Amino acid sequence: MFEVKPRTGVNRCVMQLRDKILDMLKTAKSASRALASISAKDKNRALIAMARGLMKGYRYILLRNAKDLGLARKKGLPAAMIDRLRLTEARIKEMADGLKAVAGLKDPVGEVIKEWRRPNKLLIKKVRVPIGVIGIIYESRPNVTSDCAGLCLKSGNVCILRGGSEAIHSNMAIHKVITKDLARYGIPASAVSMVDIVDRKAIDELLAAPEFVDLIIPRGGKGLIRYVAKTSRVPVIKHYEGVCHLYVDKYADIKQAVDIAYNAKVQRPGVCNAIETLLVHEDIARKFLPRAAAMLQGAGVELRGCEKTRQILKGIKKAKEEDWYAEYLDLILAVKIVKDAGEAMQFINKYGSNHSDAIVTKNRKIAEEFLKKVDSACVYHNASTRFTDGYQFGMGAEIGISTDRIHARGPMALEELCTYKYIILGSGQIRMGGGYEDAKN
Amino acid sequence: MFEVKPRTGVNRCVMQLRDKILDMLKTAKSASRALASISAKDKNRALIAMARGLMKGYRYILLRNAKDLGLARKKGLPAAMIDRLRLTEARIKEMADGLKAVAGLKDPVGEVIKEWRRPNKLLIKKVRVPIGVIGIIYESRPNVTSDCAGLCLKSGNVCILRGGSEAIHSNMAIHKVITKDLARYGIPASAVSMVDIVDRKAIDELLAAPEFVDLIIPRGGKGLIRYVAKTSRVPVIKHYEGVCHLYVDKYADIKQAVDIAYNAKVQRPGVCNAIETLLVHEDIARKFLPRAAAMLQGAGVELRGCEKTRQILKGIKKAKEEDWYAEYLDLILAVKIVKDAGEAMQFINKYGSNHSDAIVTKNRKIAEEFLKKVDSACVYHNASTRFTDGYQFGMGAEIGISTDRIHARGPMALEELCTYKYIILGSGQIRMGGGYEDAKN
Repeated sequence: MFEVKPRTGVNRCVMQLRDKILDMLKTAKSASRALASISAKDKNRALIAMARGLMKGYRYILLRNAKDLGLARKKGLPAAMIDRLRLTEARIKEMADGLKAVAGLKDPVGEVIKEWRRPNKLLIKKVRVPIGVIGIIYESRPNVTSDCAGLCLKSGNVCILRGGSEAIHSNMAIHKVITKDLARYGIPASAVSMVDIVDRKAIDELLAAPEFVDLIIPRGGKGLIRYVAKTSRVPVIKHYEGVCHLYVDKYADIKQAVDIAYNAKVQRPGVCNAIETLLVHEDIARKFLPRAAAMLQGAGVELRGCEKTRQILKGIKKAKEEDWYAEYLDLILAVKIVKDAGEAMQFINKYGSNHSDAIVTKNRKIAEEFLKKVDSACVYHNASTRFTDGYQFGMGAEIGISTDRIHARGPMALEELCTYKYIILGSGQIRMGGGYEDAKN
Repeated sequence: MFEVKPRTGVNRCVMQLRDKILDMLKTAKSASRALASISAKDKNRALIAMARGLMKGYRYILLRNAKDLGLARKKGLPAAMIDRLRLTEARIKEMADGLKAVAGLKDPVGEVIKEWRRPNKLLIKKVRVPIGVIGIIYESRPNVTSDCAGLCLKSGNVCILRGGSEAIHSNMAIHKVITKDLARYGIPASAVSMVDIVDRKAIDELLAAPEFVDLIIPRGGKGLIRYVAKTSRVPVIKHYEGVCHLYVDKYADIKQAVDIAYNAKVQRPGVCNAIETLLVHEDIARKFLPRAAAMLQGAGVELRGCEKTRQILKGIKKAKEEDWYAEYLDLILAVKIVKDAGEAMQFINKYGSNHSDAIVTKNRKIAEEFLKKVDSACVYHNASTRFTDGYQFGMGAEIGISTDRIHARGPMALEELCTYKYIILGSGQIRMGGGYEDAKN
């Protein structure tokens, strides 16, 4: 457990930081008890108030955002990062709209997931409840602050937000305007807590406190996620990389396959559910590849092929071993010809990241095998991998895409931000002894 | 990730151990792919064959068990531990019966948990699939070997078993007889793997390999569980302590309350779902406590009370602060008088371990508040906490009682040993751009 080491002169600063975080975590933990019982109505009102806070406070937020932008320029941060950091009135309105949309979603807390009666008449109800305290560690985009605050509040969870140091003034401003009216709806302001300490040691303190924090969700670059997963003693649900595949089978409808390949690569190449590798059955390659390549290259996609692919698509770059592992997040696509669906599945299970993979085929048996054997969170038949998304799935929201296997897989929304408890209703039942089940304990 | 450090003379032994474990884990990981697709029929046949292996091999198992018992006596291990270690023909038969019972349960793999169609006609199916590779780290009781092997196999998971060093000969013998016929049913023998290295460093290797092991379940004493939780980089579901409470409300049926208190404490005091603390409303204490005390003390229960309790039950020991935190696992019960249900709930949430807690009352409103606000895996109204058990819940089996909040809470059986994937069936759907959800990514 979390042990507070004795103070020594040298560690004085670390101790002050630790004490500050510990105080915050204790307050958060006790807020989580209160928050679990707030009515859906009050939570929804609070969400609307948070949205109003953003709209009323937009000038203040932009002012603080300008400070972050200035510092970022001074530090010479890359343009893409500065762009992610930048807020505009329109972006703030979108954040507010996001909160209002979450207010309109069904409250997941208290829902009876399952209910059954035992022969001894005990009635067992499995009921959805909040997880408790969720730490969100993220980078760059300040909109994450209000998005995550909204989703956690709606699902009855206290959140501890810890954004990137480059966005600290924006994040603190957003945090200030969205929390100021919470108390009116019976919600402690600490229900939405923020770690406003730039020192990275603050993250370590968060990750070392399983008695106060129930779950950590890291959102950001691979470096951050790896660090969190490696360091944390709190359970982590990683939103890691998407090395996604499209397999075009021998029995594919070629036009459909071309459209899906194009959509899955080009429509938004910088996101985790875009494809990075195209696998093509050798019997259809000569028909399919030239048509697909024309479309893809027309959109500026760089193709990197295996030897057989390069015999069909002359002049494209050669794919190296590391290309099969790559998450380009860019207009680059690795292409490989395989001898059948079996080889495609093996390839995906070896090089993929178990995120989203698709098959295009008119052969139902082959499709069924693919859907069964490809071990990914989302497996598609005749559709684009780009649908791996909480909104597209109809969940109405999304905190991210889990690439883990425990608790939540794929799009994570309100239900996935919950756990459950059992409520057992009796009329005096007591347990009788005997049997294997008793001997075993 | 798991990095193999360069060999140096000093670390030669550690490296050999590491290599051996790594080899096992790689084999296990690849077996998990195969196992996920084995039919229910073959898994059930394999389970029956495992049971047969136990019955046929019982003399051999008893012989190896005798070796463990001899060594345990030589080492002077406590009698209770030696008793837990001891196998008999009857106990082996119970293990075999357990495997047969698991064979009779419904296969959780492939079950469609939920299915819905989107406006764009995509059909989304949420399907139960195995977690993958599960490490079970346990102590003493050799029956855990076959129990866990059976549950993991049925749920399509490869298990890596690591029992206590004091039971190693028994565990290896059980492992040998239950795995020898697996191949007949298309199941790789490595689907049930065992770490037969006594060195505790073997555990560390297991806990340091998240790329091969998907989940760790520690079963045993608090020291083991704490160590695993603290060290592991693989997700852990703890089966930790049960500091369970019974609150007897002002509106309780006194006879019912006495019966439940007696059952929850006395029927099997050494297990996690037995109560450790009795909370009594001050208005009912004078009527309830003498009757309850007579029954409990008659069964040899030592009562330790708060000041007010001791004014009613003269001569009992005083409960100290540490008593409220204690998991006695013995015929001891702490007793406290509270002024109302609110104080009882606060007390439980403070001192309890969020395992199982009960209220006895005829007042439905008070019961509902208790069931809602007590933040435990299982909360009972007018029934004994002793029902927190996979068999009693009707799950047909149990790998343990999770005291964690992520993935599984309370009794863990076949469904809880699974995760899920999404299978998405389309007819050429591609994603259109635009909207907040896209801007946000």
